[in-house]
Order: sequence, then C-alpha cells, then structure tokens
Amino acid sequence: MKYNKIYTDCAATTPVDPRVIKAMMPYFFVKMGNPASMHKMGQDNFEVLEKCRQITADFVGAAKKEEIIFTGSATESNNLAIKGVMWANQKNGKHLIVSSVEHDCILESAKWLSRNGFEVSYLAADEYGMIHPETVEAAIRPDTILVSVMHANNEIGTINPVSEIAKVCHKHGVLFHTDAAQTCGKIEVNVQKNGADLLTASSHKMYGPKGVAFLYIKTGTVIEAWTHGGGQEGGLRSSTVNIPAIVGFAKAIEIANKEMASEEKRLIVLRDKLIKNVLKEIPTAGLNGHPSKRLPNIASFRFAYIEGESIIYWLNEYGIMASTGSACSSPKLTASHVLTACGLRKEEIHGSLRLSLGKWTTEKDIDFIIEKLQIVVEKLNKLSPFIKK
Amino acid sequence: MKYNKIYTDCAATTPVDPRVIKAMMPYFFVKMGNPASMHKMGQDNFEVLEKCRQITADFVGAAKKEEIIFTGSATESNNLAIKGVMWANQKNGKHLIVSSVEHDCILESAKWLSRNGFEVSYLAADEYGMIHPETVEAAIRPDTILVSVMHANNEIGTINPVSEIAKVCHKHGVLFHTDAAQTCGKIEVNVQKNGADLLTASSHKMYGPKGVAFLYIKTGTVIEAWTHGGGQEGGLRSSTVNIPAIVGFAKAIEIANKEMASEEKRLIVLRDKLIKNVLKEIPTAGLNGHPSKRLPNIASFRFAYIEGESIIYWLNEYGIMASTGSACSSPKLTASHVLTACGLRKEEIHGSLRLSLGKWTTEKDIDFIIEKLQIVVEKLNKLSPFIKK
Repeated sequence: MKYNKIYTDCAATTPVDPRVIKAMMPYFFVKMGNPASMHKMGQDNFEVLEKCRQITADFVGAAKKEEIIFTGSATESNNLAIKGVMWANQKNGKHLIVSSVEHDCILESAKWLSRNGFEVSYLAADEYGMIHPETVEAAIRPDTILVSVMHANNEIGTINPVSEIAKVCHKHGVLFHTDAAQTCGKIEVNVQKNGADLLTASSHKMYGPKGVAFLYIKTGTVIEAWTHGGGQEGGLRSSTVNIPAIVGFAKAIEIANKEMASEEKRLIVLRDKLIKNVLKEIPTAGLNGHPSKRLPNIASFRFAYIEGESIIYWLNEYGIMASTGSACSSPKLTASHVLTACGLRKEEIHGSLRLSLGKWTTEKDIDFIIEKLQIVVEKLNKLSPFIKK
Repeated sequence: MKYNKIYTDCAATTPVDPRVIKAMMPYFFVKMGNPASMHKMGQDNFEVLEKCRQITADFVGAAKKEEIIFTGSATESNNLAIKGVMWANQKNGKHLIVSSVEHDCILESAKWLSRNGFEVSYLAADEYGMIHPETVEAAIRPDTILVSVMHANNEIGTINPVSEIAKVCHKHGVLFHTDAAQTCGKIEVNVQKNGADLLTASSHKMYGPKGVAFLYIKTGTVIEAWTHGGGQEGGLRSSTVNIPAIVGFAKAIEIANKEMASEEKRLIVLRDKLIKNVLKEIPTAGLNGHPSKRLPNIASFRFAYIEGESIIYWLNEYGIMASTGSACSSPKLTASHVLTACGLRKEEIHGSLRLSLGKWTTEKDIDFIIEKLQIVVEKLNKLSPFIKK
C-alpha cells in the first residue's frame, strides 16, 4: 500500500499498519466478548487480553505483565500518572516537577493540580529543548513526590537523558515518570534500562489503532485511579476493555519488535538527508532541536521572515502534509511552548515546520519535499515584508 | 452473518454491525489524518468529525452539535459528568444525589467525591429497581448541585421516569444527568423530551465499536474537564480524536435511526416469550425488574436454591452465553447492588441470571434457551442442598 499523497505528519498520528487492521478484524464481530463476562466468549477474550499485556510488558522490559495498564490514550495515561500519583501521595508531599517542554496533557494536568492545592516546578530546557539531570536535581525538594520528563519531544524530536534523570530522582527518593509516546516503537524503550517508575506509550503513534495506550506502573508505586467504575485494569482504569484496539496495539508492538531496528536506521538516513539539504539549499532555514540526539523520524525547521502556517498551506498544495508543531495545539495558533523553552524568539517560532516521517516515507518523497520546500520558501520570501528586496 | 453460538450478553457488549465495520475501514489507513492537523487529510477528517457530531446531536435531539462531546467510554462520560459538574460548581454547593442502582462508574465516582469533601445521597429504589420522582425531590437540599439517575438499568432493565425526575430537579434549580448507555439505540432517547442537562451514551452497547461514547452537555451547563491536555472536544476531552471509532459510532446511530423502532417491537416479542415461558416452566423462577417498564432486550431472573454462576457455566456448555448481572462487576463475585436495592435477599441475588438479547437473536434461539434453561435448573436443583428431596 502507498499513499498518493506524501504524509509527513507521523508524530501527530500514523496510519494503521494493514497487518494490524487484519489482526483486529475478528474481534469486532466473531470474537467480540467482554473479557469481564464469565461465558466462553468473555473468557476467551480475557485470555487474549492477558496475552497482549504480556507482549506489551516484554516489549518495554516490565518485570511482570500486571505492571501494564491499558488506557484509552496517551493523554489519559499521562493524566493518570500525574494526578493519580500526586493525589495518592499527598500526605507525603504536594510538590510535582515537570519539564517545560512536556506535551500539553502533562502541563495541563500539572496546572490543574496547582489550582487544587499542589505546587508545580517547571524545568528549563537548553537551546535544543533538552532537560539535564542537574536541572532536575536542583528542583527537587523534600516534599517532591514525582518528576515527569518526556523521553523525546513531539515537536522537535530531542531525546532526553532519561536514565540519568531517573537516577537523580531515585537518589532523592522521588518517583520518575516519562512520556514515551513518541519513542516507543521508534527507538528502544526499556524500563529496566531507563529506570522509569511510570511510563506512557501510545498505539496510534506506532502504526496501531487510536483509542488505546498504556501506562507502565512499577510494582509498589503508590497511585490511585482517576477514572472510577467497574474496576477493570487492576482497578486503575475502569471501562469496558477495548479488545479490538488492544489486539491491534499488541500486533503493532510485535511488528515493531521485528522491524524497528532496521526501520530506525532507514529513517535516520532519510531524516539526515532532509536536514542536510534543507539547511544547505535554504539559507533562511535553521534546525530546531538537538543535532544528533533526536528521534529518527522528526525534522523540525524554522524559517526566518515567513509563517509556518503559510508553508504548510503551500506544501499541502503539492500534496505534502506536515505540521508546524504539535497537532494537538495547532488550532490554538499560540506560540509553541516547546520552541519558547528553547529560547527562540516569537518570529522564529511562527516560522516553524515539523516534518515527521514514517514507514511509508521513501527517498523519492524526501527528494520531492526538498525540491518543493525550496520553491515554497522562495515564494513566501518574496511576499514577506521583513526581507529587504 | 450469524453466530454459531447463542450470545445473550448484549447488555455487556454488542457485536459491531458489519455495516459499521465497513464504514470504519477507510479511516484506519487511507483517510487517517488527525483532525487537529492543518493539512488536507487533517482538515478532511475535521469535517468528518463535525458531520458525525451533527448525526449524534440530531439522534438525541440536542439543540446544536457542540452539545455533543465524544469521549472514550460511557465510564469516562459518566466520570466527566459527575466529577466535572461537582468540581466546577463546588462554590455553590457540594451535595450530589445519585440513585442506588446506578452503574459502578457513577457510584464509584460519587464515592471518590465523598472521600474528597463532597456529600452524596443515594436514592432508594422500589422492588422493581425503579427510582421515583418523589424520592428524588425528598433528597434535594439547598446545596444540591446535581442529580444522576440512569435511564434504564443495565442489570434488570427497569426504565426510570427520567422526564418526571428532570422536572423535579429543574423545579429546585438542580442539574440532571442521566446515563443512557443501555437505552440509546434501543428505545427513544431525546433530551428535549426527557429534560436531561447531561446525558451519557455508549457506542459498543448499540452495535458500534468499543472505545467511543459521548456526553451530551446542554449549553450553559457549568462543567470542567477531567482529562486535561490538547483541548480537543471543546476543551472538555483532551486526546487525539478517534476518527475511525467516531465514524463507526455515527454509522451505528444512522442504522439505529432506521431500524430501532421495528427492532424494538421484535425484541419485545422475544423477551416476553422468554419471560412468560421461563416463569411458566420453571416453578422456582422469579422475574427481576419491572414487569412492563423494562428494556426490550433485557430479561433478568432469579432462581431459588441455586447459584447464577452455576447456571451460566451450564448454559455455556450448550453454547448459550449469558451473565449473572453487570459484566463489569461479575469478577468481583459480590452481591449485586442493584438486586440488593430491589430488596432481594442474598440467596435470591446469588441465583440471578441476565439474558440480554440483540439484533442477531432469533425466535429459535429463544426456544433453545427456554429448553436448555429448564434442563440446567433441574440439574442444579438436584444438587442443591437447600431443596428437600
């Protein structure tokens, strides 16, 4: 299968791998029992659920499958991690630390907590949007309960040194959560190695279906539910278990298990070709994020004098689909908090473009993008009132 | 399509209608854009999303489509309704009223609120599990903010007089929420007629996919988000919008629009045949729930002297799949709170069986169930230590 258009917005959402769709299909009709039901179709799906949980646990190096809680989205996992841990531990402290480059679902959860009696510290990033362990350590207080720093950033692709950050947290007896929504299925994510006590990952960012994600919760972590009801998922995520979506997610994980390493290498070649050529051919272009410690599939640029929205509009005319930054926040048209944290000026931020590649991106696509992006930037430069002509 | 087994657990979850699966398919791969993205595939899906919202709004008689918020499950909708309204209005009062026969997601949300500074009153039901308007009125206090009474009960099928309850609430300036997860798509649900300020419905209870539900919120209702993030769904439900699932839900609604009325009549005939014959042929059987004001698809029985779990086990051997009560709470093996609220004794509750029919249930299935249920009950009666032989 191949798109007739060039889709370079894989950080927003990925197409579902046809092998995943095929795996899900029987569970919509023929094998549709509720795993909480006691009859055969229910119990069969209970077994399927636990098999998927084991596949997921193995993928991220969890010690046992019960450490994996399936949720409806990474947003929900992050809300549960942040609010569930802070609420459950409030007798021991009310201080939360999050980085300033987190996804909105972490930042808005933190803001909600700060409106409800908690204190939040926001960690500064360096010019590449990276969070350093020493910045984390300096922010830890005796009443700090939890630190949340994302594995890699969704807008600029910078990978954070999470294992060093986890070590700092544990040295001070503080829990560590990382949002791995952009890394899981793209680069290695292993809780034994990165030391996370809680870890979020999402299906639809790695060629699985939407509507399912997980939260890894290390055994012994004190956390309470944020969605209450029938007590599914160890009491931490009530709701009828979404078997078709979980089967799809597990299939996406199995595929990633086999293909991730080679795909990572392939994407790095394409990404680097894209970055090198854009910086070479377009003199007003700059790279956002870390030059080497970055996701294999994200290239984020800024273009002086012109607007990211206009670039997207014109690329779209050529069939190239991209974003300025996070899809979630694009309708807001506010300056990206990530690029602001990198120390960029407002006009630089508004000239930003994110190209996020995926498994259907070809070298021909990259060549086409480089060619058309030059034309678009040239066209917009001519219209820009900020360039002396 | 037809099951080779007899599935009578449609109140737990329904199979996805093949027409719904077909409608969803293109949105997994070809039309997979994130509606928050600014490019063509994103904007195309934004239009699809708003079209689905309009279909949903029209189905329940909402004044405008923005009154419909898509969520991930009825549990999530109910959590948002209860916690979101109570939290947002806490300066005006901290008193919540819920019925004692609500689904666990309402009851557990209420319990969480009562652990966090709110006061909750639980409404008593009559012997049929029905909640009466006068019971509601007697519980309302000056500091009452919200009343939540389900449209129809998921275990016994009793339909509550929600429009009368809404009138009582509004007379006292109190908001009214109803959980219509079991009624929407089965009997008429119209917010203009039932007067609900907030209403929950679920896709997978009406032949749509799992992982999607909605909350109707009347314009002007003061409510705050319970899941924070990118600000999707009018800021009330952050998370990447699950387009395939929403498209499926809207298709299920369109099908219900056309077929619900005739299907309701068909199911009532089957249900009544089942009830009449079980009560006639099995002398130890009793009907749970209201004799006439009940869902077209739910028949709930109690059998003296024997255990519901044993009945399910033996029916399962004949390929008949049923539940004792709510699938959500069946693994807990605690006595059903619904049947307790109806005034049943513990031994009567433990002998309960719910048969919930659906669009693939045939008259032949009903005949088969009546025949096999007699055999199973007879077999278990012989083993029961409570019957004098």
